[in-house]
Amino acid sequence: MATIKEVAELAGVSVATVSRALNNSGYVGKASREKVERAIKLLDFYPNEVARSLYQKKSKLIGLLLPDIANPFFPLVAKGVEDKVNERGYSLILGNVQGDLEKEKEYLKIFAQNNVAGVLSAVQGNTKELNGIPIVLLDRVNNETDYAVHTDDHHGGELAAQAIVERQAKNIVIMVGPKDIPSSHDRLAGNLKVLNKARIPYQLFQTDTYQFDSAEKTAQHFLDQFPNADSVIASNDVYALAVMREAIKRGIRIPDELQIIGYDDMPFSALMFPGLSTIAQPAYEIGYKGAELLCKCIENKMIEKKRIQLPVTLIIRESLREKDEDA
Amino acid sequence: MATIKEVAELAGVSVATVSRALNNSGYVGKASREKVERAIKLLDFYPNEVARSLYQKKSKLIGLLLPDIANPFFPLVAKGVEDKVNERGYSLILGNVQGDLEKEKEYLKIFAQNNVAGVLSAVQGNTKELNGIPIVLLDRVNNETDYAVHTDDHHGGELAAQAIVERQAKNIVIMVGPKDIPSSHDRLAGNLKVLNKARIPYQLFQTDTYQFDSAEKTAQHFLDQFPNADSVIASNDVYALAVMREAIKRGIRIPDELQIIGYDDMPFSALMFPGLSTIAQPAYEIGYKGAELLCKCIENKMIEKKRIQLPVTLIIRESLREKDEDA
Repeated sequence: MATIKEVAELAGVSVATVSRALNNSGYVGKASREKVERAIKLLDFYPNEVARSLYQKKSKLIGLLLPDIANPFFPLVAKGVEDKVNERGYSLILGNVQGDLEKEKEYLKIFAQNNVAGVLSAVQGNTKELNGIPIVLLDRVNNETDYAVHTDDHHGGELAAQAIVERQAKNIVIMVGPKDIPSSHDRLAGNLKVLNKARIPYQLFQTDTYQFDSAEKTAQHFLDQFPNADSVIASNDVYALAVMREAIKRGIRIPDELQIIGYDDMPFSALMFPGLSTIAQPAYEIGYKGAELLCKCIENKMIEKKRIQLPVTLIIRESLREKDEDA
Repeated sequence: MATIKEVAELAGVSVATVSRALNNSGYVGKASREKVERAIKLLDFYPNEVARSLYQKKSKLIGLLLPDIANPFFPLVAKGVEDKVNERGYSLILGNVQGDLEKEKEYLKIFAQNNVAGVLSAVQGNTKELNGIPIVLLDRVNNETDYAVHTDDHHGGELAAQAIVERQAKNIVIMVGPKDIPSSHDRLAGNLKVLNKARIPYQLFQTDTYQFDSAEKTAQHFLDQFPNADSVIASNDVYALAVMREAIKRGIRIPDELQIIGYDDMPFSALMFPGLSTIAQPAYEIGYKGAELLCKCIENKMIEKKRIQLPVTLIIRESLREKDEDA
């Protein structure tokens, strides 16, 4: 890599002049500026980001905290984040927390040590450690943080229950998401609002994780406990698919004997038959809009809305029965 | 965040002494060292990583280049990478290239600007831009690069074809991976070695991408072109699942009328019914071992093997027929 000294020599100006030209600070004559620009081009010189970061106490890096990169929801969020921060000239430091609070703390420290300009976090954790570095929460929202992009989980819960209610449901079981994740409560509240209004009975099955590895076992317990269920509102797509697989293995016909709706709309939920009906969360958009909000914070731009709520949509595929005629 | 000056004041020593104590360079008396350590603890001081990076011309950051973070293979690789680099005190800058050569170049520049200590790349690109920064290739190997962790694609191709050959295959179609990816050739060569040896005829269907979004259309073309296929060796799990879905939609029974084997062993390939038989690539291990190799390069440790080949394994699920009795 060429150095600033080599640029100065080739341009026939002082290092200080090159530095002023690079930082757009102080006066540089037109002729000198042209010489510097030519030399930069010829030498393929680019300023060291680390030196710039130290000088400005702010890097072109953004920290991204994810709860579990193996959960296919989060790579999509990350892709949205990356596309937006790239547009604005930032890069990402990746922090995959994997449910470990200590790891989250460690990452926040690493982010601060690297002078990150801001943090995007999809982790439900402590964000007080950040000492004034702007943070935007993705998907999971808490009350300590001002800035967030999330979806309407309550409405998603309503949509899922409504889709089931309209399709000859006599024996409904709701698979409830982990208690420590606020969205689980909101989705359940949405489910119950619709079911109670329609005066349809239901049963609950509480799960304690969204981790991929537990899905198969959970599905087995679920069907052992509710062999006569004719409708399942699952906690997410992974768990819905696991129930679907286990049901088909047991000879239960989908959707005639058992209909299922998931939550998330993972790419592979469309890739099987029967395809999984689900509530689509705009994962990419959550990342993209979150990054946009963070960039505005970093660049001190006007922010109209500190909390952005994105819509969810009902996706009907083959895992649901035909609609009742009178529905 | 506390400053080094505040640490010096509280400890009652000079800033230079604190600096020497932090960097373990030069003499610091035992009493002074203890005072400094106490002050660091009391003030919760941690040295700025950016300043350290500038001074040492090498940061605690590692660049990670991925071709497509939405392809579920790569988040698993990333997880393996992250677990290993974390152990060694490094963090990752994420570069998601998304098939864009310009983006790859841009990322290599960003990595260099941030003084990364090394680069891990799962992208089949130009690695000459790196000016002496160590690089380890993941999964995809080329001849310009010394260090790589990859799997035995030729053997994987053999295993897939052998599994098909042993199961009453009369009308085999091989879905060949993109031409610009070397592993496609190796897998095909492995397929053909087995089929030719067994003197079993086959037909080829060339794909030009592994992108998720193209899978459904490709599966439709595939079954339009080969409606009588009774065995498919697919280019990867995503494309195998798309063919399976399209076949079931068309009323073709899996595996009785059409058996399918994929490649990769994605987590969701086990989560449906029929489950997808496949060749398992150790995605997490590729990341973990690659990061281990890179850390050795960075730390100038002894390296026994510059290129590490990891084994692949045949996974039998419901998408394959029963084995022939004489096989």
